[in-house]
Amino acid sequence: AQSTRIAVTPGDGIGPEVVAEAVRCLETLRAKHGLDLEWTRFPWPSHAWHEEHGESMPADALAQLQKYDAILLGALGDPGPMDDPDRYLLPDSISLAPLLDMRKGFDQWVCERPARLLPGARQYLADERAKDIDMLVIRENSEGEYVSQGGRLRKGTPDEVATQMEVFTRKATDRIIRYGFEQARNRAADRVKEGRTRTFRTLDGRTCESQVCLITKRNALRYWGDMYTEAFDEISKEYPDVATHHELVDAACMKFVQSPWAFDVVVASNLQGDILTDLAAVLSGGMGVAPSCNLNPTDPDMPSMFEPTHGSAPDIAGQGLADPTAMLFTAARMLEWLGRKDPAIAAAGKELFDAVAADLAENSGRRRGTREIGSAICERLSQ
Amino acid sequence: AQSTRIAVTPGDGIGPEVVAEAVRCLETLRAKHGLDLEWTRFPWPSHAWHEEHGESMPADALAQLQKYDAILLGALGDPGPMDDPDRYLLPDSISLAPLLDMRKGFDQWVCERPARLLPGARQYLADERAKDIDMLVIRENSEGEYVSQGGRLRKGTPDEVATQMEVFTRKATDRIIRYGFEQARNRAADRVKEGRTRTFRTLDGRTCESQVCLITKRNALRYWGDMYTEAFDEISKEYPDVATHHELVDAACMKFVQSPWAFDVVVASNLQGDILTDLAAVLSGGMGVAPSCNLNPTDPDMPSMFEPTHGSAPDIAGQGLADPTAMLFTAARMLEWLGRKDPAIAAAGKELFDAVAADLAENSGRRRGTREIGSAICERLSQ
Ligand SMILES: CC(C)[C@H](C(=O)O)[C@@H](O)C(=O)O
Ligand SMILES: CC(C)[C@H](C(=O)O)[C@@H](O)C(=O)O
Repeated sequence: AQSTRIAVTPGDGIGPEVVAEAVRCLETLRAKHGLDLEWTRFPWPSHAWHEEHGESMPADALAQLQKYDAILLGALGDPGPMDDPDRYLLPDSISLAPLLDMRKGFDQWVCERPARLLPGARQYLADERAKDIDMLVIRENSEGEYVSQGGRLRKGTPDEVATQMEVFTRKATDRIIRYGFEQARNRAADRVKEGRTRTFRTLDGRTCESQVCLITKRNALRYWGDMYTEAFDEISKEYPDVATHHELVDAACMKFVQSPWAFDVVVASNLQGDILTDLAAVLSGGMGVAPSCNLNPTDPDMPSMFEPTHGSAPDIAGQGLADPTAMLFTAARMLEWLGRKDPAIAAAGKELFDAVAADLAENSGRRRGTREIGSAICERLSQ
Repeated sequence: AQSTRIAVTPGDGIGPEVVAEAVRCLETLRAKHGLDLEWTRFPWPSHAWHEEHGESMPADALAQLQKYDAILLGALGDPGPMDDPDRYLLPDSISLAPLLDMRKGFDQWVCERPARLLPGARQYLADERAKDIDMLVIRENSEGEYVSQGGRLRKGTPDEVATQMEVFTRKATDRIIRYGFEQARNRAADRVKEGRTRTFRTLDGRTCESQVCLITKRNALRYWGDMYTEAFDEISKEYPDVATHHELVDAACMKFVQSPWAFDVVVASNLQGDILTDLAAVLSGGMGVAPSCNLNPTDPDMPSMFEPTHGSAPDIAGQGLADPTAMLFTAARMLEWLGRKDPAIAAAGKELFDAVAADLAENSGRRRGTREIGSAICERLSQ
């Protein structure tokens, strides 16, 4: 069998620094367990690349990356110093384009962002029950508000009209909703294995061990809101063991703050999912710990892409100050995903997750450098 | 001069109960100060009205309401019991339509939602600095994501495509941004009067006493994102005394949780404003205290509409349990708005605000009924 191959794209800002720690951890696990794992580095800092070649990635970037089983991405975005408008050379819309290009090019139609408030993570909410936050936000990642259709009529004049089209297909709607229900089942099964259970009530009063909450804004964005709701109601019949729930996106933001521990799986559109995952991330400890998984669960020839939710943080780049925790959780998720084909790799993913979680719990609030945190975790893995 | 006339539309669920308390307070203030204030009640419960007439409001509702200087709305939305799908008679898209109809019909192009964490209000954030939350979210209320353009192709089939068009005009963009800057100046002036100041830094390092933060999602929704940004950069030059700031909507949600006290005025599109105002409301005490003002600041023939941000809460309707605090803050805002023409009314608005705030501070966390709270505040006003 062929070994499992990872494309490592460090990107901009703190990306290279946190990716370096992820690679050290991967190397430690590879050596320890004799994992059949390889990786290749693609140093395409978007700013430098753009200055030299006028593009944000090489023209054949996707073709190069497609040969890999997964992509581990550091961070993108290097606008130049924000406080000097004259040096604002590369807008986000260019430097972040590779993210959207990969999601689209590899049809990574699921963006999965787990949110658990782990011991040691920063807690922003006053309520102690925040410790029970354990949700999985599933974002539709292939269409919707992100199709980039639209334009600017009479651009730059007082009579300008800018349009932006949202396009939703029933096919993509069905598959993301079905994926949500499957994940709800998987999570319930995992909880049973770990000896924990959670209880959710259905509308007709039965109790279930998992729940899917569908987010829309159907009272204002009616067309796709209604289609989403119909698809959800239909597919939910195939999952009588999973409780269902609807929230409008504005109410959902409010409930994320008021009682985030009540959510299990949350399914949302591309933009609404973007918003809700940032909110879920901060409620479960902030950008410093949040992984983001862009998955293509259906086509084995398409690599999935794993990135921390945080950005490139140009203000602290190159100083060894960035916290690699989110990057390491991201690498752990990637191994678990790749482990679908190779149980040893799945086990290594679990091991990495546990090591990062243990390090977080023991060092809560301590100020440590990028390398110090990476070393502590590598050491833990070597034991 | 003609007296100031208010159309009172109690609406559904808890609407009539909380509106009753607002009317008692208005009556108390009218009698006490001899205010030249009149009101008329329009009992159009959307559910009942719809069953009887097949509409959510009378056909000439807007024509009736237009004769008033302001509309004080309780709450809309009466879906029937949510736990019995067979009785799910009236979807939100119908029962809430009057809200959108009024905003559109009266060109209430500003939705203004102040968020201050007042003493006694519930605090969801762990950080003590949450006490300093004092922002004004200004939502574009006339176009954008809410134009209701789009449709469903091949509806109900596996090949369905649902579209939703977002339409933004430079004219509406300019006016909402300019309104934001004006409010920033007003707020700074008010703070000076009250002997408080706040300091914000501009990108080039100067300090200002107010700030406007523009929200977009320009890295993904490019067309209007760019137009908004260009308009903002241009208009900001007219306000060198106001510091400017940009945030992407996802990052803004995160920063609302991490450091909401850092915001002053926030300007956002219709949908992004909808999301951010719910979030701002919960961070500043929750739905129980949040007013929403739908304003037409330009056309004196068009009434503005004032509603609490909360919904109709059908689960507790008719039981005298609803907290009228948000409704009373809303009424106070309305009086302040109407007071632009009549200083005595403006003063009464301030008096009502102070009475409600004092009641909140003294009764924090106590369980009281709708009428009990209303009576306590009326009594305070009579003193
Ligand atoms: C960088 C940006 C285009 C991206 C998105 O909006 O999807 C980011 O916010 C994310 O959540 O991954
Ligand atoms: C009821 C609904 C249509 C409305 C909106 O989305 O504007 C509400 O959420 C609000 O914020 O006033």
